[in-house]
Amino acid sequence: MRIGSHYLGNDRCEFSLWAPTLQEVAVQILSSERRLIPMQQDEEGYWKVTVEGVAPGTLYNYELEGNIERADPASHFQPQGVHGPSEVVEHSTFAWTDKSWSGVPLEEMIIYELHVGTFTDAGTFESMIPRLKDLRELGINAIEIMPVAQFPGERNWGYDGVFPFAVQNSYGGPEAFKKSIDACHQHGISVILDVVFNHIGPEGNYFADFGPYFTKKYSGDWGDAMNFDGQYSDGVRNYFIENALYWFENYHIDGLRLDAIQAILEFGARPFLRELSDAVAEISQKIGRKLYLIAESDLNDVRTIRSREIGGYGIDAQWNDDFHHSLHTLLTGENDRYYQDFGKLAHIEKSYREGFVYSGQYAPHRKRRHGSSSVEEPGYKFVVFSQTHDQIGNRVLAERLSQLVAFEGLKLAAGAVFLSAFVPFLFMGEEYGESAPFFYFISHSDEPLIEIIRKSKAEEFKAFTGRGEMQDPQSPDTFNKCKLNWELRTEGKHQALWELHRQLIQMRQTIPALKKLDKKCLEVSGIEDDKILFLRRWNDDSQIFAILNFNLEDVTFTAAPPVGNWQKILDSSERKWMGSGTSLPDNLEAGKQVTMKPQSFVVYEVK
Amino acid sequence: MRIGSHYLGNDRCEFSLWAPTLQEVAVQILSSERRLIPMQQDEEGYWKVTVEGVAPGTLYNYELEGNIERADPASHFQPQGVHGPSEVVEHSTFAWTDKSWSGVPLEEMIIYELHVGTFTDAGTFESMIPRLKDLRELGINAIEIMPVAQFPGERNWGYDGVFPFAVQNSYGGPEAFKKSIDACHQHGISVILDVVFNHIGPEGNYFADFGPYFTKKYSGDWGDAMNFDGQYSDGVRNYFIENALYWFENYHIDGLRLDAIQAILEFGARPFLRELSDAVAEISQKIGRKLYLIAESDLNDVRTIRSREIGGYGIDAQWNDDFHHSLHTLLTGENDRYYQDFGKLAHIEKSYREGFVYSGQYAPHRKRRHGSSSVEEPGYKFVVFSQTHDQIGNRVLAERLSQLVAFEGLKLAAGAVFLSAFVPFLFMGEEYGESAPFFYFISHSDEPLIEIIRKSKAEEFKAFTGRGEMQDPQSPDTFNKCKLNWELRTEGKHQALWELHRQLIQMRQTIPALKKLDKKCLEVSGIEDDKILFLRRWNDDSQIFAILNFNLEDVTFTAAPPVGNWQKILDSSERKWMGSGTSLPDNLEAGKQVTMKPQSFVVYEVK
Repeated sequence: MRIGSHYLGNDRCEFSLWAPTLQEVAVQILSSERRLIPMQQDEEGYWKVTVEGVAPGTLYNYELEGNIERADPASHFQPQGVHGPSEVVEHSTFAWTDKSWSGVPLEEMIIYELHVGTFTDAGTFESMIPRLKDLRELGINAIEIMPVAQFPGERNWGYDGVFPFAVQNSYGGPEAFKKSIDACHQHGISVILDVVFNHIGPEGNYFADFGPYFTKKYSGDWGDAMNFDGQYSDGVRNYFIENALYWFENYHIDGLRLDAIQAILEFGARPFLRELSDAVAEISQKIGRKLYLIAESDLNDVRTIRSREIGGYGIDAQWNDDFHHSLHTLLTGENDRYYQDFGKLAHIEKSYREGFVYSGQYAPHRKRRHGSSSVEEPGYKFVVFSQTHDQIGNRVLAERLSQLVAFEGLKLAAGAVFLSAFVPFLFMGEEYGESAPFFYFISHSDEPLIEIIRKSKAEEFKAFTGRGEMQDPQSPDTFNKCKLNWELRTEGKHQALWELHRQLIQMRQTIPALKKLDKKCLEVSGIEDDKILFLRRWNDDSQIFAILNFNLEDVTFTAAPPVGNWQKILDSSERKWMGSGTSLPDNLEAGKQVTMKPQSFVVYEVK
Repeated sequence: MRIGSHYLGNDRCEFSLWAPTLQEVAVQILSSERRLIPMQQDEEGYWKVTVEGVAPGTLYNYELEGNIERADPASHFQPQGVHGPSEVVEHSTFAWTDKSWSGVPLEEMIIYELHVGTFTDAGTFESMIPRLKDLRELGINAIEIMPVAQFPGERNWGYDGVFPFAVQNSYGGPEAFKKSIDACHQHGISVILDVVFNHIGPEGNYFADFGPYFTKKYSGDWGDAMNFDGQYSDGVRNYFIENALYWFENYHIDGLRLDAIQAILEFGARPFLRELSDAVAEISQKIGRKLYLIAESDLNDVRTIRSREIGGYGIDAQWNDDFHHSLHTLLTGENDRYYQDFGKLAHIEKSYREGFVYSGQYAPHRKRRHGSSSVEEPGYKFVVFSQTHDQIGNRVLAERLSQLVAFEGLKLAAGAVFLSAFVPFLFMGEEYGESAPFFYFISHSDEPLIEIIRKSKAEEFKAFTGRGEMQDPQSPDTFNKCKLNWELRTEGKHQALWELHRQLIQMRQTIPALKKLDKKCLEVSGIEDDKILFLRRWNDDSQIFAILNFNLEDVTFTAAPPVGNWQKILDSSERKWMGSGTSLPDNLEAGKQVTMKPQSFVVYEVK
């Protein structure tokens, strides 16, 4: 069921609002002469009316029960922010130039996560465009944009959005967003949009005035849980499914990243994710290219990504946090918070092999068994990374890996991610070892709320063993510190790191054994005490053998590669990569003792 | 992980208690000389000790943190009730005589639900035994026993049990229960035990003293929800899985009826029901006969009964409330509470055809879409009935169908149930039209709790459109009124109804078309306005055609049976069944106008 304002042409506009329990609703047209047009409710609780004399750009509100004035919960644009009225948007007039665009297949994606506000100095959609060439040069073919749904003020990660259909005004609004997406497609870059279906932000959240969007049955991590299975839940489910389709239809989005699906709480017989993937499969067919759903999940529940035919929800891929935690603990030695469930070489070995590390065994930090086995799922169903906005920002000092490990460790992190049989993912700036932090920042106008957030962040950070003083999330300074120093990428070690990323991406795209994301053509083993890992991948045409040394010291071992004429194709210690010089010999001969440099990785190929 | 006391022979007993967050636990042996033996905790939070000089029958408690004295939450027997100590039980000495017992296959089951306390005057396990012959004569081959886990006092439906492993003392305790099960097996009757894994009763519930059995994350229907997915949930899950296995191993139980699985609230990656069905499949193999799990569920979620291979939980069957509601509303015309979602002939038609009536469409009473399709699931995965303890007892006056519809209607109800391609189920006394009510009754000793229950029941009954005064649940009189009048079954119409049930059961067991529970060899149609339903079932060898008239008046229609020589084999209006005389002719000829008597049903077979 379509919701929000829908411009029909010829100054006619249809308004549709779900408000099943209200008695009286009218649309308030805020043109020069203010008009109030009563709406009619249908049997499913949707109020509707088609109004003449409404041009695109017209502002409007809804009047509820004759006395409450509210913006449209499905507003397409909030030009004056979360507390202002909604604007009628005409989507059909944008001059798209991507008619021949067919999208990047998931299996080939190199994903680059960015936050619009801090990616550039201007912090707008338009200012992103000149950088697309650079990203493309690196090899990026998919950007994942942190949420752009209208949030309070101008500074926010995006997870406090309160108008899930409206594109953030301070980023440039709907038109500019379309322009940037069109430019991405021109550059051969797919666009994945981060959307939040599990909660609505705190400030400017007037949803409860409209209907039973929330439930008290479950306690949510971010305030009241959304009502996905109680009385009237059909309207809530429709709201979010319509939201997903809206981005594909009106913004030519190529995929959605579903925020924290473990917080979509429901016990119904038709899982919301399944209903969503059905709807997206249908529109995919209609649009004529494959559209993707990628979940962030804390569940390690293989049903998320399993195909629908065997009882799965049919989500195309999911973030693999277990891989991150395995890698992060090996690189940093950290063992606080959830990192206590990781830290062994065996963890990352299992992740390379299966996907989830926790597939049903006891997790000390969770104090319970966790997860189900993903061993049967193909590699392209997992997105892997050594950094994300969360893994950086949810630290007291919001340090990137560049502040936590030495330069050699950054190269090793890249090797670990890009040599995997998974879909690789970078957080903006990671490719050149950006030094800026990525703090949690907000720009609310509600003082008591700001105080609550400050306190809750301070509480969260208590679990942290690291030192340092928390930044004030509300301060513009906190936000400004997070802006990328784009010029760094052409300087010294930064440039070497950038080049290494480019090299790794090229290898993935040209070496058949790396290109095919098949965990069944992968063998991994390791020496736990030495923190040294051996990774073999193959297909019919080629074979690679990589050795990754997570040790901070030299490691001597007896080479035992499979039979073959192994020739080195990459050595992260070489001077070319600003290392201390060759780590392993050009040819790897079985039985020969070799010594490998600290935090280095080497890739051999059978010639 | 085994829990509770485990008698090892030679006066040695092993005690095992899950209490992961406690610092100090000891077992208190309450023999002539009181002994306190400290226990040791393992890494999973289980406290253990093996004690010498403990004979079967020894009473004991646990001492927690040096000062709290509590009975064993996994106690096998509470001879002095819920507030007394636990008793060591030796299970291995019972003289079972059922060595050759192989159980009744689900597909062949005729289930008879009984409540031990009101089934006989004595209200004990032993007093059930003399009645098994009668049940067997009727054709019953499975009894389903309402929960026998120790509850407070002597009068309770069983859902207020607080010692899930202990057999109710007032019913006769462990030994008497085994005796009655052994007798059932001697009579060729399988025993299904009703178990409650979704909550623990209110009085005598000391679980929170032992560990995190409960969670505040979800609001349960019966107090705090059990902790099936939070920190320490492994111990809670183990507790209930051990409970399931315990009945199969020690009591030779043939199947478990899982109470209200919709209240087992969890969002983990390994559904509890799936884990349970895995464990039962394993012990089934070990014991050497198929053991069953039958769920009560308000979810209409096909995953419950779907096989594990295609993502289901592998529960063997589930109660089909939709069938009941469809039938009940047709018979009574009631449309209050959840009955408002039913009432059309089309509902029961769909239920015969698919199982669930609500398979995803909007349910007005629930104010949301409900259920998923069960059309692909075989008939033996659904248990159907026209009455249950709940459907009777959850009414202000707790009337059985015998008090709500005329005698003809009772026969029609039986026809509707037994002609279905589902597993039929009777509530004790239904077979002869018992007139006693089945009130909700309790015998708590906690006065404020009794008052809360009185009030909540009164609140529940407000939704009732029927008149009448609520009985006091605590009054012994309320309980006594529910006892069966067993002598009725040989009197007049009662006897005719009993004979009709026997006849229907025999037909199911001898006519191949009825025996095979295959919904795909079933055709159903109806005339909505006339409330007349046509049901055809067939297999390779036989074919039956039944006509059920739910109208309270004569209905005239043109016979349109499929091609064949249709001969009448049952006519519920005949004088033999104390009806007013033949309803339809002996031969059913296509194109002939016939008039059918009110609330009658007729079965034809192709000869």
